Amino acid sequence: MTTYQKIVLASRPKGAVSADNFRLETAPVPTITDGQVLIRNHYLSLDPYMRGRMEDTKSYAAPQAIGEVMIGGTVGEVIDSKNTKFSVGDKVVGGSGWAEMCVSDGQMLRKVDTAHIPLSAYLGSVGMPGMTAWYGLTQIMQPKAGETIVVSAASGAVGSVVGQLARIRGCRAVGIAGGPEKCAYVVDELGFDACVDYKSPTFLADLAAATPDGIDAIFENVGGVVFDAALARMNPFGRIAMCGLIAGYNGEPMVMNNVRMILTMRLTIRGFIVAEHLEFWPEGLKELGTLVATGKLKFRESVAEGLAAAPEAFMGLLKGKNFGKQLVKLV
Amino acid sequence: MTTYQKIVLASRPKGAVSADNFRLETAPVPTITDGQVLIRNHYLSLDPYMRGRMEDTKSYAAPQAIGEVMIGGTVGEVIDSKNTKFSVGDKVVGGSGWAEMCVSDGQMLRKVDTAHIPLSAYLGSVGMPGMTAWYGLTQIMQPKAGETIVVSAASGAVGSVVGQLARIRGCRAVGIAGGPEKCAYVVDELGFDACVDYKSPTFLADLAAATPDGIDAIFENVGGVVFDAALARMNPFGRIAMCGLIAGYNGEPMVMNNVRMILTMRLTIRGFIVAEHLEFWPEGLKELGTLVATGKLKFRESVAEGLAAAPEAFMGLLKGKNFGKQLVKLV
Repeated sequence: MTTYQKIVLASRPKGAVSADNFRLETAPVPTITDGQVLIRNHYLSLDPYMRGRMEDTKSYAAPQAIGEVMIGGTVGEVIDSKNTKFSVGDKVVGGSGWAEMCVSDGQMLRKVDTAHIPLSAYLGSVGMPGMTAWYGLTQIMQPKAGETIVVSAASGAVGSVVGQLARIRGCRAVGIAGGPEKCAYVVDELGFDACVDYKSPTFLADLAAATPDGIDAIFENVGGVVFDAALARMNPFGRIAMCGLIAGYNGEPMVMNNVRMILTMRLTIRGFIVAEHLEFWPEGLKELGTLVATGKLKFRESVAEGLAAAPEAFMGLLKGKNFGKQLVKLV
Repeated sequence: MTTYQKIVLASRPKGAVSADNFRLETAPVPTITDGQVLIRNHYLSLDPYMRGRMEDTKSYAAPQAIGEVMIGGTVGEVIDSKNTKFSVGDKVVGGSGWAEMCVSDGQMLRKVDTAHIPLSAYLGSVGMPGMTAWYGLTQIMQPKAGETIVVSAASGAVGSVVGQLARIRGCRAVGIAGGPEKCAYVVDELGFDACVDYKSPTFLADLAAATPDGIDAIFENVGGVVFDAALARMNPFGRIAMCGLIAGYNGEPMVMNNVRMILTMRLTIRGFIVAEHLEFWPEGLKELGTLVATGKLKFRESVAEGLAAAPEAFMGLLKGKNFGKQLVKLV
């Protein structure tokens, strides 16, 4: 190989993301210098937060620059190294972005063990999505055994971990997902106590039936009417971890109607970005890695084949077409 | 005196509170038994939270019962005592409700010193409203010197204390109030750095001008569009103490539009009821009492004369017609 492919941000979305927001480019394979490693990426992670970066608005992170490689987490293999900490053949987790190859100085690169944990899981349950779930649950929702927790996008990379970790802590875990197939998976495969289909005409009644003792904590990935419905069922002193608002990513109005519940139920709502809490990662990844290696934490992956498939897979993710963690397989 | 007057809840409001929701009744002065004291109330406190109790909806407190004396804080004087802890002539703070007299077993009654602090202040800056401000500021907003805090209903019993305490802690204190007269008072008398008139057509621009470095913490008494405007200017890791939502007390839609800010700015929003945090009262009341006694904490009172004036004064309070702490003078 003398060249590799990458995908850059061609333009910012106006409303929904479209294919012409991206451009596939070919570049020569770089030559590394002292201290650097060359990585062949095996999997690219697609995550909802990328949608926010495509916008040029005030947010927690700088916007993705036009013409630069789309940001993103990756796992791959070191294929050349002039860095004493990494050898050819090492499996690594990094943030190369939407590209088949990348050069790293080793700073943000982490060697991982694939003997008991599949490489792709380091982009999911044992990576940023898993840590997002772990942090939100343990640090914000702080659930006690016997409490009821609700998580939206429950079949996704983050939501699936939230519910399983809550079950391990003795909680009643109730998922919200789109469609009977995802709901069946959440209950039958992931072991949630219940899962409610937000697309069903009986959604409100179903949510009430699934949370007979009210809701003590919410992990919110979606926002909008689904969130409002859960908010209305909160118990006193409930906690809400605000992780994502995918329902409004394309600029749809995103209102909260049950604001009064914050006061009358003395709720705590906290937005968070897991990358700002790196001090918790060792503890969290240890629990997540052990659970995955021993088969106690289940996950599912939607895998698109080849870098060129990334834009369509990403657009599907934003519409909830994925089922579990959305990846792009590059090798 | 062989009889006294009291006001009971006659009916629940449909929309705005009206005079026929209340009924003035006359009762014989009670005879006290062992352990009891008889109190002649001097001042009755009117507070926005009473509006919530008039509703029969799920909230943090049981609704006010129909036909019973309207709840409320009072200060007065012991005029008969069969309780060894209280003597005739003692000045006391209690929760007698809307009545000229009441009998107490002494449990929820507190003797106060009026040598340096006027009796009425125990219903305001050195009472529940002051403690509401103190708790929200110190425990939820946790302001650091140099930060900008915003408080709505800034000329009111709670808001006026929030801003003054924040100034003492080295913050830039920005109030929001209704009309130029209240705004002038908030700046000129209370010493806030700025106050923005929410009734002005230039409100949004004025708020931006008053908070050039954004907003680090909000004390929210009002809700609705005023709150949304402040929310839009929050800095990362901002804190919001949700104390009241007076804009929606009559059932008006109460939506939050800038929900996304919770996530992008990693905000923490917490609703609270100061009566649930009694462990902080000694510390808070000590600071508030010292500040009032030394003239460093200023306040203003709107005083209605006579129990029969209470309903109209209360309706005025809900419309923001009061200026400072709303009281009813009974003696």
